[in-house]
Amino acid sequence: MRISELSAVTGVTVPTIKYYLREGLLPEGERSAPTQAAYGDVHMQRLRVIRALLDSGVTIAETRRVLEALDTPPEKAHDLLGTAHAAITPPVDDALDLTEAEQLATQLGWEPGMCSQAVLHAVARALQGLKRAGFTVPDPVMPVYLENIRRIADAEIAGVPTESAEAAVRYVVLGSVLVEPLLLALRRVAQQVASAERFGGAGN
Amino acid sequence: MRISELSAVTGVTVPTIKYYLREGLLPEGERSAPTQAAYGDVHMQRLRVIRALLDSGVTIAETRRVLEALDTPPEKAHDLLGTAHAAITPPVDDALDLTEAEQLATQLGWEPGMCSQAVLHAVARALQGLKRAGFTVPDPVMPVYLENIRRIADAEIAGVPTESAEAAVRYVVLGSVLVEPLLLALRRVAQQVASAERFGGAGN
Repeated sequence: MRISELSAVTGVTVPTIKYYLREGLLPEGERSAPTQAAYGDVHMQRLRVIRALLDSGVTIAETRRVLEALDTPPEKAHDLLGTAHAAITPPVDDALDLTEAEQLATQLGWEPGMCSQAVLHAVARALQGLKRAGFTVPDPVMPVYLENIRRIADAEIAGVPTESAEAAVRYVVLGSVLVEPLLLALRRVAQQVASAERFGGAGN
Repeated sequence: MRISELSAVTGVTVPTIKYYLREGLLPEGERSAPTQAAYGDVHMQRLRVIRALLDSGVTIAETRRVLEALDTPPEKAHDLLGTAHAAITPPVDDALDLTEAEQLATQLGWEPGMCSQAVLHAVARALQGLKRAGFTVPDPVMPVYLENIRRIADAEIAGVPTESAEAAVRYVVLGSVLVEPLLLALRRVAQQVASAERFGGAGN
């Protein structure tokens, strides 16, 4: 199909599609004439993934890395996660103190070498952000975070599809990125429900 | 203290402080001379909160609304959460279908009126993002999300400090925003740990 048709079926405007092509997020169509290219299912599917990533707050640069991870899966299933997380996690920052992050990770079952430095640094960076704001997670709350997040991760990893490498890549890469807004939104609903039950107020 | 001293103690550059002043994020200092203003603890504390919010990906406009929520707490404790969430949740979108979001909310204990439309819309938007990308949360995983997120929210709401309204506001507003990067980072660690245990790979 032509770019105008690709635009019509996906609801993404032609200038936006051209922008994704220039940025290398979307592969070029097959040249059907000097000024015309043909697009197919691959482009439709890829456009949906791009929109979903950008809509959930992933940057253009991170989206490019996530798409690269989708296109060039590593050999070992476990490395997929590292690749997916690396695509959306800021680079490591050697000035960060990892002590507390490693303590929390240990309570999640972590042993040295089990996960990428990037995600440990992300934990350390989040802890630093809380500290800078003068905010402390109450003592009884942190173990609840760790216990329930570990249960969530167990269910997610148990759900990795095994029928094909492609399905596994898709699940791991998109699942770890795209599910984040859902989990955060559900947490807000649950907080308001728990708050209404405790304080008896109504939402607005 | 002078603006240069405020910069020195907080590590935030003078141009950045001036930018926050212009944007109305930071209250003006007390005029001590026509071209000089004096800053105090309030400004130091506020700067820390601003940095923490911006560092965790909250926009300037959202930060302004969070700070307004901190400054003008609502009368009822429960409304705090609505105010905090409204500050960081995009406006409602009437084109969204809320059916599935309400089903999930119901499983979290939600009844109509218990939480703000904004957070239900955030759930619906996240579900739409997943659908657009052609990603489905596996059937056995969704109940695990709901159950464990509800446990997390219960612990968080049980931890709301009761010694003062100010402490409660601070906990609720900052806790719901600033803890998000920590939870997401811990999930990534837990996923890599669970993956290493299941697939036997090592991190990188």
